[in-house]
Amino acid sequence: MNRIITIGREFGSGGREIGRRLAERLQIAYYDQEIVTELVKRTQLAADYVRRVEETQPLPLIPITTGRSFWPSTLPVIDEQLSIFTEESHILTDMAEKSSCVIVGRCADYVLRDMEPFRLFIYADMDFKMERCRQREDDVAELNDKALRSRIQTIDKRRSKYYSFFTDQEWGARENYDLCVNSAKLGIKGTVNALAAYLA
Amino acid sequence: MNRIITIGREFGSGGREIGRRLAERLQIAYYDQEIVTELVKRTQLAADYVRRVEETQPLPLIPITTGRSFWPSTLPVIDEQLSIFTEESHILTDMAEKSSCVIVGRCADYVLRDMEPFRLFIYADMDFKMERCRQREDDVAELNDKALRSRIQTIDKRRSKYYSFFTDQEWGARENYDLCVNSAKLGIKGTVNALAAYLA
Repeated sequence: MNRIITIGREFGSGGREIGRRLAERLQIAYYDQEIVTELVKRTQLAADYVRRVEETQPLPLIPITTGRSFWPSTLPVIDEQLSIFTEESHILTDMAEKSSCVIVGRCADYVLRDMEPFRLFIYADMDFKMERCRQREDDVAELNDKALRSRIQTIDKRRSKYYSFFTDQEWGARENYDLCVNSAKLGIKGTVNALAAYLA
Repeated sequence: MNRIITIGREFGSGGREIGRRLAERLQIAYYDQEIVTELVKRTQLAADYVRRVEETQPLPLIPITTGRSFWPSTLPVIDEQLSIFTEESHILTDMAEKSSCVIVGRCADYVLRDMEPFRLFIYADMDFKMERCRQREDDVAELNDKALRSRIQTIDKRRSKYYSFFTDQEWGARENYDLCVNSAKLGIKGTVNALAAYLA
């Protein structure tokens, strides 16, 4: 059976880098938000092409996405969000069925729950997250500590809302994960080494 | 520097057994509630002896415990709890200063915070905890699932209150720990192996 490792993470905790390095160490595939979005786009291009072909034929219009067919909604923005989420969920399931992988974000722990993934959550002390943001993000140089802390909290609030909307579970609550790791304790590389050993 | 590993744990998660086995694997000392209580009793016996000796001399009465001197309280039960906690904290600090060790419970993560312990929290899915209770506790045979679940929750509520009273922190909240482990995922022995590798 494929080994599926999903990672939820606080902004600034280094969860994405830990995921990428862990996948390298375990020699399995790696997917994150950008990769999944790109895959969805390409799938959507293919789907649009099929739709255009169909529309030139005398066929009834069939909804391409199950998102639109299963989730009737009167709010276009929610309709679109649901549609994207459904597309992403299909892509994730395809990928996880094809090979062992690490997946960062995208509610993958919930989407792939039937495949019994190992569900990681990475968090860190606020000082560590702020320091990491200052080292890596160019656009935070002008923010003072209070503003940076607030930005980190805002991004995490968005992640939390996204997660609870699609999963009806609490983001970062221990009962939804198999292992919750404070990356500040051992640092990014130390945490990757420790996790590779834990999962060996 | 001594290696200090503290363990907080949900009732039924196997946190105590994991702590004992982990100490064996790492070949360091192990302390839990019963051991600490016993040590406090013996210390108290010694302290009582000293007090009796002092009282036969024309000396001013000096409070033996800092608990009584720092925490003025009008409720005898709280006064006693604080006194016990203070005694236990002294014992824990002594032990941690003497040698590397695993300590289960007793708010050790907070008491020893200046020694920068590795702070573990062990939890598990309710089904796992109930199954483990049924296998290990004779007195739960007569309880149906609902009653057993309720008992487990009551014990954890007590632990949570005890922890927050003495530490002013939230019990089991990820920010107070370095690693939170769902013991149901790999089982007790699997979790011990994985943790020994993580901490190697």
